[in-house]
Amino acid sequence: MRLCKTIEEIRLLLNTVRNKGKYIGLVPTMGFLHQGHLSLVHEAKRHCDVVVMSIFVNPTQFGPNEDYDAYPRDLQRDTSLAAEAGVDIIFAPPAEEMYPQEFSSYVDVTGVSESLCGGSRPGHFRGVATVVTKLFNIIQPQAAFFGQKDFQQVLVIKRMVADLNMHVKIVDVPIMREIDGLALSSRNIYLSPEERQAALVLYRSLMLAQELIVNGEREIRRIKEAVIKAIGAEPRANIDYVEILSIPNLTPIDQLKGKALLALAVRFGKTRLIDNTVLEA
Amino acid sequence: MRLCKTIEEIRLLLNTVRNKGKYIGLVPTMGFLHQGHLSLVHEAKRHCDVVVMSIFVNPTQFGPNEDYDAYPRDLQRDTSLAAEAGVDIIFAPPAEEMYPQEFSSYVDVTGVSESLCGGSRPGHFRGVATVVTKLFNIIQPQAAFFGQKDFQQVLVIKRMVADLNMHVKIVDVPIMREIDGLALSSRNIYLSPEERQAALVLYRSLMLAQELIVNGEREIRRIKEAVIKAIGAEPRANIDYVEILSIPNLTPIDQLKGKALLALAVRFGKTRLIDNTVLEA
Repeated sequence: MRLCKTIEEIRLLLNTVRNKGKYIGLVPTMGFLHQGHLSLVHEAKRHCDVVVMSIFVNPTQFGPNEDYDAYPRDLQRDTSLAAEAGVDIIFAPPAEEMYPQEFSSYVDVTGVSESLCGGSRPGHFRGVATVVTKLFNIIQPQAAFFGQKDFQQVLVIKRMVADLNMHVKIVDVPIMREIDGLALSSRNIYLSPEERQAALVLYRSLMLAQELIVNGEREIRRIKEAVIKAIGAEPRANIDYVEILSIPNLTPIDQLKGKALLALAVRFGKTRLIDNTVLEA
Repeated sequence: MRLCKTIEEIRLLLNTVRNKGKYIGLVPTMGFLHQGHLSLVHEAKRHCDVVVMSIFVNPTQFGPNEDYDAYPRDLQRDTSLAAEAGVDIIFAPPAEEMYPQEFSSYVDVTGVSESLCGGSRPGHFRGVATVVTKLFNIIQPQAAFFGQKDFQQVLVIKRMVADLNMHVKIVDVPIMREIDGLALSSRNIYLSPEERQAALVLYRSLMLAQELIVNGEREIRRIKEAVIKAIGAEPRANIDYVEILSIPNLTPIDQLKGKALLALAVRFGKTRLIDNTVLEA
């Protein structure tokens, strides 16, 4: 496995790879890898000759009061986990390599980026779309792999790729969960044991919604109320949002017809966790 | 020469070209070609194996009260001029091919795009950066050619290419002028004979500024005042802006040291013309 820290370095390396006609897959991450990231690598290896993983805690997707500085980092551990999983090249640039001082261009996806995390975290998806555009241009992968845990992110990136005519296939991979249902996240490390236990309410409330659907409920308002009530019963949980929106445009709906996204963002102490499930009538 | 109207069509065609290892040059235009555009083609032919010209009056770079509908179009005449000049492929998509209904992603270059035409035409450079990104992704040229008449546009695009790590060399080509000094522009066709005559004040005022520099003037305020006075002497001229700014960031300066851009936007009747010159101490 090769580790590149500069754009120049990885471009030169990938030129050689591309000239051999290899199919290149990209797994963009912010590092502090868990099984969720590794499931993206496994999927990438099924499709691609060469798998590149980027490890970059992207400052432009964090708000001024968010956890950019505190975000967990461990490049050495990430490097061994990635190598073990079969990653061929890691791209781990320092922040100033990606954002030199005079940097001033951004990619904005309107519409689908405005609800959910886009509402709670202004500028977040602008940062995501910008860094993903940069990574696509630097690495020029034929395919890129994203986790469904960040469901809205997947929709934003698919919209951007279609709108801006980028040549890359976006593959989304199901959420990985702990045995008790907690969705894997690098931020889970922030949780105290009590918060970790309390956070199980997320998965339970998603399952409750699925159960309501199975029992014939189609009224969005009632499903939402039941989810809010279930989360509210957990005293350590502070709801940021609970929404059920259309796919792929994330617009409000009254009745469940076809597919819709149930998405949650909930704080446990200082830690904000997200989770989601696709509801289907 | 081949004429492509869909993205699918030109992608397929260019895949074949690329597989032969050809160096592809792009000349983006809004059509209604004049010698200025053709000078870009000549420059492109010196550098590239295959020259693609896009002809697309881009709706997103026009404001709601601007001349999008009235902008002159003549694809048949453009096609013969382009063929004569040696263009290999024309890409002339309809607006709905570039902007389908659900389109919602934009590229924003902050800073350098905010003064001059960015101030007078809010959203203009967002539209320019977005369509140029789309064209670069569709055509994937190794080089793209832009006229210095839109000097700020060149700076915006160079900034965008650097910031977003696009793989394309930006080549800028000097302004072409009529014998009497009027910069070539598709919008010159709007001018009445009297306005056409009055518009010569633009070039005269640029030359006046150059003369002041030759005579040792370095005070930006005084050069600007002289230019404003010269344009003001022409009763048909209505100044939108007269500015002298640093290159490449287009920030205000007090004294001329090294290079600076003197840029003008002036209305003659309903027609807004731009022109510029680089001042050098």
